[in-house]
Amino acid sequence: SFSRGMQTVTLIPGDGIGPEISAAVVKIFEAAKAPIRWEERNVTAIKGPGGRWMIPPDAKESMDRSKIGLKGPLKTPIAAGHPSMNLLLRKTFDLYANVRPCVSIEGYKTPYTDVDLVTIRENTEGEYSGIEHVIVDGVVQSIKLITENASRRIAEYAFEYARNNQRSSVTAVHKANIMRMSDGLFLRKCREVAEDYKDIKFTEIYLDTVCLNMVQDPTQFDILVMPNLYGDILSDLCAGLIGGLGVTPSGNIGANGVAIFESVHGTAPDIAGMDLANPTALLLSAVMMLRHMGLHEHASKIQTACFDTIKEKKVLTKDLGGSSKCSEFTAEICRRVQDLD
Amino acid sequence: SFSRGMQTVTLIPGDGIGPEISAAVVKIFEAAKAPIRWEERNVTAIKGPGGRWMIPPDAKESMDRSKIGLKGPLKTPIAAGHPSMNLLLRKTFDLYANVRPCVSIEGYKTPYTDVDLVTIRENTEGEYSGIEHVIVDGVVQSIKLITENASRRIAEYAFEYARNNQRSSVTAVHKANIMRMSDGLFLRKCREVAEDYKDIKFTEIYLDTVCLNMVQDPTQFDILVMPNLYGDILSDLCAGLIGGLGVTPSGNIGANGVAIFESVHGTAPDIAGMDLANPTALLLSAVMMLRHMGLHEHASKIQTACFDTIKEKKVLTKDLGGSSKCSEFTAEICRRVQDLD
Ligand SMILES: CC(C)[C@H](C(=O)O)[C@@H](O)C(=O)O
Ligand SMILES: CC(C)[C@H](C(=O)O)[C@@H](O)C(=O)O
Repeated sequence: SFSRGMQTVTLIPGDGIGPEISAAVVKIFEAAKAPIRWEERNVTAIKGPGGRWMIPPDAKESMDRSKIGLKGPLKTPIAAGHPSMNLLLRKTFDLYANVRPCVSIEGYKTPYTDVDLVTIRENTEGEYSGIEHVIVDGVVQSIKLITENASRRIAEYAFEYARNNQRSSVTAVHKANIMRMSDGLFLRKCREVAEDYKDIKFTEIYLDTVCLNMVQDPTQFDILVMPNLYGDILSDLCAGLIGGLGVTPSGNIGANGVAIFESVHGTAPDIAGMDLANPTALLLSAVMMLRHMGLHEHASKIQTACFDTIKEKKVLTKDLGGSSKCSEFTAEICRRVQDLD
Repeated sequence: SFSRGMQTVTLIPGDGIGPEISAAVVKIFEAAKAPIRWEERNVTAIKGPGGRWMIPPDAKESMDRSKIGLKGPLKTPIAAGHPSMNLLLRKTFDLYANVRPCVSIEGYKTPYTDVDLVTIRENTEGEYSGIEHVIVDGVVQSIKLITENASRRIAEYAFEYARNNQRSSVTAVHKANIMRMSDGLFLRKCREVAEDYKDIKFTEIYLDTVCLNMVQDPTQFDILVMPNLYGDILSDLCAGLIGGLGVTPSGNIGANGVAIFESVHGTAPDIAGMDLANPTALLLSAVMMLRHMGLHEHASKIQTACFDTIKEKKVLTKDLGGSSKCSEFTAEICRRVQDLD
């Protein structure tokens, strides 16, 4: 049948430019004959029983079945009191690892070349616990929560990722000189897990030091693993080194095999619907997804076509320094994908 | 008398290369006829009554009198359980504002030019509260403490600094989308204070966004004000943009007119005593100190001599790309200082 060997992926086009760049990815996947069946879902948050925000049941149900999602940008916050959809998705599917490979793109000039690193961010706890109190008038506390389990889980993920991706080192990022107990626990778990991966080099670095060294020479880093907030910062910093969120892919890996891949840029409402958006970040996220699903050939073909298009500099969207439409950029990648057959 | 018009400064040479670079600064100040009388003190922590770590009474007493300190690097942690001397000094003198001007140095090549910004870090609370607990086995919490008073005080400092230094904008850095109450309080105080400084433009930015934008184009930023940990990170990141901690000055401003200026690099034990160290960071910190004391002419003269020496590239220490000794670099700056008379 038509769907023989096909795998289902839940497609969440998102808001603003989301639908356009999602359509671009779908087109390129078609050109590459990627064996993916898309199940499109909307994830605008709704109020469930008891007034709790939740993602729509049909989206949840699709994800529960397909296990794999591809997601465009979502506008957030939609209204005061409305939760961040990104946070809600992380929570709903226990997406505990945010993975961002940052690789310099040939032909897209930034102050850096040869960046090739991966940030792995603990995505469920830490500074994002949401627990805050007013102690007395004018004094507020926020609680950063670090657990042994989540720390071990993310450390294990990082070392497994290193092994599976022929990487040679994992560096734990921390401020255990200041937060001795919480970051100390995180660091201890990393050290323990490192013992089981003697083939991977393990090092430790302070968050401030890694930021300083990163902007001086990012090529010295390989895989970096860290608590939630540090990952929020460092993953964006590293995205900046290679050209920004418009070209940086991202994957969120969950328990039970669930994973959502997403572009982490905004919805760009000013250019939405004008065929001007750059689909690269979502496309490269979809390439990560293909690799995650074991579809390495399709992944490589699409990635090569995308990078070659950027390298050649003839058909580029405006943000990449060109003057082409999203559809033209997409068609050029499709053409190259087909040429690679 | 000899000391007519002289102001006393407490000099804390510090460890490792500290004494050499302090001696270099003293020499250059002499050449510039800066009206400073140095009172040298050691600040190795000692155990006071009740077992509390404290800085030696004669150092404290000197600082209390002089109000102004210049400090080289201190080795820390000295031993397990020993506090960070930097933290102890901040606490002892309520040094609530850490100020780091980051300005591109002509002739010292980095991927960036025309950086000219100032990070102002709240230095007393936030993630540095030191309050941590084990909740249950394997679950640890660290408490981030944000107060109205400290937030208002640092915001006021930032706006005053902007006014006194002919700066046009102040940007508050935060994650109030995640830490709504704590960072929310910080941000609210910044907004309130901004109301009193209509001549200074006020903007707000997320910590992750500022990191991303910073590495893409640091020239868009002016004065940045933020809670403790964010300042720790961002000040080091910005130091990286202009060449690292070896060329970045720093000042810690306290209540009651106390201030300590310091180089924030390490003690470099590997080259200590070998006349190879680069005194630039401590010298530029001393220049900040002169400005703080109202000695603008001496400050400008020394700064010009230092920058001209670097620009000319003839007499540079090894870390700056040359092969000169610390003493030669120092002599060259002295010569230029005298030529400027
Ligand atoms: C939108 C926001 C809640 C989020 C975060 O802070 O984690 C974003 O910065 C991210 O990295 O996905
Ligand atoms: C040494 C350490 C305690 C300190 C900090 O984290 O504040 C350092 O990084 C700094 O910026 O002065």
